[in-house]
Amino acid sequence: MAIGVFDSGIGGLTVFKSIAEHFPTLDIYYLGDTARVPYGNKSPETIINYSIECARYLISECGAEAIVIACNTASSYAVDIIADRFKVPVTGVVLPGSEQALRVSKKGKIAVIGTRATIRSGSYRAALETMSEIELDIYENACPLFVPIVEEMMTESPIAELAVKMYLDDLSKKGVDTLVLGCTHYPMLKRTISKLYPQFNIVDSSEVIIEHLIKSGLSTEGRGLRKLFFTDESPAMEMLRNELAAGAPVEIISLP
Amino acid sequence: MAIGVFDSGIGGLTVFKSIAEHFPTLDIYYLGDTARVPYGNKSPETIINYSIECARYLISECGAEAIVIACNTASSYAVDIIADRFKVPVTGVVLPGSEQALRVSKKGKIAVIGTRATIRSGSYRAALETMSEIELDIYENACPLFVPIVEEMMTESPIAELAVKMYLDDLSKKGVDTLVLGCTHYPMLKRTISKLYPQFNIVDSSEVIIEHLIKSGLSTEGRGLRKLFFTDESPAMEMLRNELAAGAPVEIISLP
Repeated sequence: MAIGVFDSGIGGLTVFKSIAEHFPTLDIYYLGDTARVPYGNKSPETIINYSIECARYLISECGAEAIVIACNTASSYAVDIIADRFKVPVTGVVLPGSEQALRVSKKGKIAVIGTRATIRSGSYRAALETMSEIELDIYENACPLFVPIVEEMMTESPIAELAVKMYLDDLSKKGVDTLVLGCTHYPMLKRTISKLYPQFNIVDSSEVIIEHLIKSGLSTEGRGLRKLFFTDESPAMEMLRNELAAGAPVEIISLP
Repeated sequence: MAIGVFDSGIGGLTVFKSIAEHFPTLDIYYLGDTARVPYGNKSPETIINYSIECARYLISECGAEAIVIACNTASSYAVDIIADRFKVPVTGVVLPGSEQALRVSKKGKIAVIGTRATIRSGSYRAALETMSEIELDIYENACPLFVPIVEEMMTESPIAELAVKMYLDDLSKKGVDTLVLGCTHYPMLKRTISKLYPQFNIVDSSEVIIEHLIKSGLSTEGRGLRKLFFTDESPAMEMLRNELAAGAPVEIISLP
């Protein structure tokens, strides 16, 4: 069994690592579209086209028989479209994250933060409302400065604290008890968020995707092959690859 | 005569506007590669490939007979390559900006700020050193948070002030007298920079490109046609288009 994981950039390597650890015999291919990162400020049409190209590469070139979309923005728009077009099981991060939020929220006051495109899609709101048996208070905030702050590795700086306050202070005032990190970059800001707002239960969608994959009945038999593909070189890619992908081979490719 | 102007996104529309005002009869085509913005954190190979694709579209599809690269990152890598490949005159923003910096600097202590890729290229340093008759003190700082702050229209916020101090304070301590804004987004931060560091002579490369074009002997005869192309939709595009392009027709295209 071979699975393909893709993300707009390098953030999804945390998902790759987590899947690789839980399913050691599974063949896993990762594609990071670093030449066109970020997706979060692009139009739905472009996000869908880029996602289809990523899935096509993993399925046609690598032989992936199932797809995991490790990017919240692509998950918000392209899960059904890819499943329909390629006739393979597709798992995004929105459903697992929403399920976990409903499990941990005591008061049903749930906030979702993400890129502008993820928030605009309303994907988390729709999933939460569909799955909840009680009425929820759902808040959605786009936090567009978080991605560059994380990419600059300034996650515990004065500028990070100022940005966290700017985007989350109104959520705290509204009595939110559960905060869904709807972007693969945001877990890097967990420590700063918890320091300023210790009352939030923080849900990291990428942490709960494993449970979702287990429940899906995914066959895990394979040769334990691992390979990473990126559409552009980047220094952070090399660093994270060593840390998160245990030296799996890397290839630079062109899409489409 | 038809001229093609391109940028990684919408920032170069200020250059488009300036050229359009100075050369009313010139035919001017603008291409903003909004589907792949930003260029500033990508590899030289990708920046060069994307720049060639933009130039090819303007030359082959629109009939442009000269190219203006309104993006500092693309100007830093692709001026000579495009001139050589397409055999047309190519004007970037690096040379005009460097000339102006040498004109206004009293002490020869010049700082250039830009994206990581622009700074890494050393393009401004090379231009300044080649053209100067005296020895210069040149400082180069990448300011990667400036672009997202500008795109979020937070140019006069506490977070903008914090970022400006973070990136420019050491330049002030070193006695820099001239600051080159080596990115089309940065002029939007002029007011905040001048408030905090009034001693800097600020050079905006896009302001001096006209003079460079006049000196180049560009023929300005044409029908005054104007057309804008973007590779993706974006709300800011629409707003800036009305403000900067006086309602010129817009088309969404695919590259390559």
